[in-house]
Amino acid sequence: MSAGILYGVGLGPGDPELVTVKAARLVYEAKVVAYFAKAGRESHARRIARPYLRADCEELLLAYPMTTERPFHKPEYVEALRGFYEESAERLARVLEEGRDVALLCEGDPMFYGSFMHIFERLRTRFQVEICAGVSGMSGCFAAAKQPMTWGDDVLSVVPATLEEHALERRLAGADAAVVMKLGGNFPKLRRVLLRLRLTDRAVYVERGTMEGQKILPFAEKSDDAAPYFAIVLVPGRGRRP
Amino acid sequence: MSAGILYGVGLGPGDPELVTVKAARLVYEAKVVAYFAKAGRESHARRIARPYLRADCEELLLAYPMTTERPFHKPEYVEALRGFYEESAERLARVLEEGRDVALLCEGDPMFYGSFMHIFERLRTRFQVEICAGVSGMSGCFAAAKQPMTWGDDVLSVVPATLEEHALERRLAGADAAVVMKLGGNFPKLRRVLLRLRLTDRAVYVERGTMEGQKILPFAEKSDDAAPYFAIVLVPGRGRRP
Repeated sequence: MSAGILYGVGLGPGDPELVTVKAARLVYEAKVVAYFAKAGRESHARRIARPYLRADCEELLLAYPMTTERPFHKPEYVEALRGFYEESAERLARVLEEGRDVALLCEGDPMFYGSFMHIFERLRTRFQVEICAGVSGMSGCFAAAKQPMTWGDDVLSVVPATLEEHALERRLAGADAAVVMKLGGNFPKLRRVLLRLRLTDRAVYVERGTMEGQKILPFAEKSDDAAPYFAIVLVPGRGRRP
Repeated sequence: MSAGILYGVGLGPGDPELVTVKAARLVYEAKVVAYFAKAGRESHARRIARPYLRADCEELLLAYPMTTERPFHKPEYVEALRGFYEESAERLARVLEEGRDVALLCEGDPMFYGSFMHIFERLRTRFQVEICAGVSGMSGCFAAAKQPMTWGDDVLSVVPATLEEHALERRLAGADAAVVMKLGGNFPKLRRVLLRLRLTDRAVYVERGTMEGQKILPFAEKSDDAAPYFAIVLVPGRGRRP
């Protein structure tokens, strides 16, 4: 008996209609699906995939051991996460060894800051792994905010707001166009940096892009510092425009 | 009579199955579709959309006035392009003024180095414009090449190879992970830069990602300098991996 195939299925930025035709097919054909979720919360990936799931498919919940959204750089945290990814990979491996395929549901693009990558690295030499690209969260936000992002020779920098303040400033200072991700509690730091770089008039804040409850506003009009971890800030480029 | 709506429809990296459910619906519902093409060539966007097009839809070909793929920085070139975008926008405007919707087919993500953006900027204040996000060409290549690109606090830089050699080197030197686009005749310059930065062992060359004739190889194994303009080079990040 040959082993099953692991599919990393990108599901896009949140709107179930922004799932690709291929991802919809892979989800519909899957007899076993797996997904990450924060403990006690609905899996975001499963919510996007719901319209395409078969009623009789087997579901494997991979529940993160911690509820906070912000990875802090403590060794205990890293150890807990490593254990979680090891255990999750082994749970998937057991299904694959039975000769059954598994579709691992991924928000956005599986290869772009995705939890899937930690599973992929652990199983890629033991099993066949196929990856279905998805619309990235940031591409969903470009469209939702109607912001052309990069023109001509513009360099785009995608920068996590988790960086230390000076590093964040240096990276954003050198960008023609930028996307700042992983906001959450990093928002006040990002605001200080954007103010110093005089970028607040160009930046756009996007929360829940392409989803119910979507909020899009010029950064200058965002008066509070509350931001979900997955909210993002866009700084559109200003390159060559014939 | 109210004016029609312009839809900028992202069609993804090339595989027609990587079109989103929403884009497939917009294309199928469209009574008028428009697309760019190089003079005398099949439109790449139309080729991706073909399985979803109605047989009776009206088609508007926007044929670029030049056949070369490399935008050079000559004023005549910029003028010719400006005239082309002006004229294309006016052709679309005439259809929209008749109260008819138009779906403008776009490769990849419409807001990411897309020709659509030049039309969007010219018509956004005159007409309602809606944008449907697509899988970007680079996201398609991450998946096709099975390359996890960004980990933890990695900064991703998307850099056009059209940049002058020193600028290209400076941008790539400061990146944790990088995507180099717009290769074509810029390939020898990129090779020199990657050699100087000792990145040739990490880089991956992707040509026709997700399409028939796809070629993926470690950069170090690419012995010739021939590369289509839309080929890309990936430099995967090496950030935090629990």
